[in-house]
Amino acid sequence: MEESKQIQCPVTEALKILGGKWRIPILWKLAEEPLRYNELKRRLAGITNIMLTRSLRELEQYRLVERIQHETVPPNVEYLLAEDGKKLIPALNLIKEWGIEVIEEYPFSDKN
Amino acid sequence: MEESKQIQCPVTEALKILGGKWRIPILWKLAEEPLRYNELKRRLAGITNIMLTRSLRELEQYRLVERIQHETVPPNVEYLLAEDGKKLIPALNLIKEWGIEVIEEYPFSDKN
Repeated sequence: MEESKQIQCPVTEALKILGGKWRIPILWKLAEEPLRYNELKRRLAGITNIMLTRSLRELEQYRLVERIQHETVPPNVEYLLAEDGKKLIPALNLIKEWGIEVIEEYPFSDKN
Repeated sequence: MEESKQIQCPVTEALKILGGKWRIPILWKLAEEPLRYNELKRRLAGITNIMLTRSLRELEQYRLVERIQHETVPPNVEYLLAEDGKKLIPALNLIKEWGIEVIEEYPFSDKN
């Protein structure tokens, strides 16, 4: 590991991990409960298979999400928050509260 | 305003406002203090004028940032967090703490 890695700005660095359109929404859905791929896709309106597959793989590499393969017949795969992912839940809850409070006032428009 | 606007998922909706590479870093810098354009740009390593100008305008439209023109000679412009922007500070602080705790363990790599 790069020993003398001096973190420039923790928020900016955190956003390199959390950035992108789908990573936080995926973490947020998995914060509710572990989910299979198809159920996760169903709950993320507008996400493509390519984006979901890529985002999950990146979140696994960052150790925020775990992938569990159940040896059932047929085998099934479940995704769940790893420890580092669970540590984000308090921040996500505050973003949720902010969203409820602030967005209510806006003439809602889909800017992104 | 659209009366019966039912918010689907506050986190996903909040991310439509906070999403994108630069909005949260800009909010985070302004959370420290009001800043002039050039100083803000200096503190955001890698941002272009186009991205900073566009992101500031969007954040103003969402009423998260205010633009103050001082009638000095020459006139100068300052940006600061508006009320709705200040309400994000607790969530940003938690993201910062998460970043400090979690990122220290990672072999840092610039994935975004």
